[in-house]
Amino acid sequence: MKGYPNGEISVFEEETPPGGVVLGLDGGATSTVCVCVSAASASIAITGAKSLPILSRATAGCSNFNSVGEASAKETLEKVMVEALSKAHSSHSAVRAICLAVSGVNHPSDQHKILDWFRELFPSHVKIIIENDAVAAMASGTMGRLHGCVLIAGTGSIAYGFTEDGRQARAAGAGPILGDWGSGYGIAAQALTAIIRAHDGRAPQTVLTKNILKVLGLTSPDEVIGWTYADPSWARIAALVPVVVASAEDGDEVADEILHCSVRELSDSVKAVIRRLGLCGENGKSPFPLVMVGGVLEANNKKWNIGNEVIKQILADYPGVSPIRPEVEPAVGAALVAWNQYNRAVRGDQIS
Amino acid sequence: MKGYPNGEISVFEEETPPGGVVLGLDGGATSTVCVCVSAASASIAITGAKSLPILSRATAGCSNFNSVGEASAKETLEKVMVEALSKAHSSHSAVRAICLAVSGVNHPSDQHKILDWFRELFPSHVKIIIENDAVAAMASGTMGRLHGCVLIAGTGSIAYGFTEDGRQARAAGAGPILGDWGSGYGIAAQALTAIIRAHDGRAPQTVLTKNILKVLGLTSPDEVIGWTYADPSWARIAALVPVVVASAEDGDEVADEILHCSVRELSDSVKAVIRRLGLCGENGKSPFPLVMVGGVLEANNKKWNIGNEVIKQILADYPGVSPIRPEVEPAVGAALVAWNQYNRAVRGDQIS
Repeated sequence: MKGYPNGEISVFEEETPPGGVVLGLDGGATSTVCVCVSAASASIAITGAKSLPILSRATAGCSNFNSVGEASAKETLEKVMVEALSKAHSSHSAVRAICLAVSGVNHPSDQHKILDWFRELFPSHVKIIIENDAVAAMASGTMGRLHGCVLIAGTGSIAYGFTEDGRQARAAGAGPILGDWGSGYGIAAQALTAIIRAHDGRAPQTVLTKNILKVLGLTSPDEVIGWTYADPSWARIAALVPVVVASAEDGDEVADEILHCSVRELSDSVKAVIRRLGLCGENGKSPFPLVMVGGVLEANNKKWNIGNEVIKQILADYPGVSPIRPEVEPAVGAALVAWNQYNRAVRGDQIS
Repeated sequence: MKGYPNGEISVFEEETPPGGVVLGLDGGATSTVCVCVSAASASIAITGAKSLPILSRATAGCSNFNSVGEASAKETLEKVMVEALSKAHSSHSAVRAICLAVSGVNHPSDQHKILDWFRELFPSHVKIIIENDAVAAMASGTMGRLHGCVLIAGTGSIAYGFTEDGRQARAAGAGPILGDWGSGYGIAAQALTAIIRAHDGRAPQTVLTKNILKVLGLTSPDEVIGWTYADPSWARIAALVPVVVASAEDGDEVADEILHCSVRELSDSVKAVIRRLGLCGENGKSPFPLVMVGGVLEANNKKWNIGNEVIKQILADYPGVSPIRPEVEPAVGAALVAWNQYNRAVRGDQIS
């Protein structure tokens, strides 16, 4: 950077920072985060992965195309990358690698679709990695190493596993229509359903009625239907989870059963992945990490802690599981994946 | 009508038919039907309600504003009324009464909303009745008399009851987010979920996977997620019900359990309404009609008949129940409601 006589600073005159940048994106069902880090291998060698220096961070709304549609998802992803680069006083030409870890990526065709959106925005040598957001979450807990299992339970939920020889498996993560009952959305939708059922005489009364109507500013359970369909965005419904937890802590049996159902669903998903990948080894006791991410698991409540209950369920069957609550956010995990790929390629070039 | 020299016929020169018309609309989650009938009291006295002479019939798409949004619902309702009037060689000015029985009407505010859409389209003396589509279905089985219970299970599901002294109660009918698991949508969504669960190792294998992938032209269960969210319209998903029934008839236990779940949900909804209204009388054995409407209940399959199973469940608790499968469609029921109201008012005017 150079100073100019009038005091302005030109930030784009030279590549900033020297050696370029990598971008890590974490696109969940509620929000999207992009971090920009230095691509230089010295950066991680000096600071250690736990404090990988973040040049900038930008946030935007939901980028799950299943939830908001393709046009909106694309716009959100592009906007958040531009903002992160701008905040880092950097530009598209400085980018060496990107990892877009986005919920809703379930199939190679989803990866190709997102790659098509961004391939032309960046020079052809830029490595663009498209993954499910579970990959970012996993990497955030293992400093970029993809081995073990990750459980995400925020607005949506998914369990994802990786073996050391590169096999992957997943369970759940299929969204609200396809039975993600352990997710924040699933918990809240069941609570809203419980209100309707109590009101029309199909199920016992529950304090969820009073508590949720109060939070939503409604006066009658009939109005819950209109509220729900006025804007059935997944995140808006999932935002009711704290009311369900508080109701269960106050002794409401209906709310308590909904949370127990969530625990069963989440631990069943993790167990299915462990089983399919054989993460517990032949003796069933091999150690492996379980990275746990998302608002539903992080909630630190008085009595009810969904994450701790899930861990108990999994430990009962797989004593080798080692729970990890990451110290960095998933977007940093995505950046580590991109950084690793880029620096491996650079080292490969230097050796050859 | 008069003939003109060039052979054209003017259909609007005089009111057609003499005495005006009433409109009956049945707006479900899949389609909307409007019938136009003569408003003259002689019409029903001569022909009997079972053959209430239909001047015309028009159909359109879904008019549930919770499903398609308000603008689209309004446009659909208006279009189908205009078409029915045109086919009857009649016009807005000939309309004496309308009954719009539309799914999604759950609260007085919903009734006011729809009334606001159409109040200005018709002269102020026209009686406009806005009801849930359950009212049309009930009336279609009882020749307009609102007493007993009606169960609708098509794309959506609802149980609705009426006492002779005018009380009403309902159960279910809250749409897919709020737990209508007995509906066609509910059955199909559970079948799609079963595919995902079998694929990721959380649940047993099921022939639903092969059968549904074939119908949808997909090759892998992973693709079911993309298919589902590409257009999560309720009717599109509910259209998979016949595949679930066929799979259950072929001995698939997962499909069988989904249909049994639907039977439980539907009969629980009816029982809740019966209980709340006391339709079975003090001795629990009083007779009352149960009108049964919708594709899920009408299916006439080899082994699995959801409607018959529901009747068995209800008969076990309420031996006075008298199942009715209507001979006329719900839109005719709506027309009967409008016709009754109009002719009662006319008779009232003549007496006073």
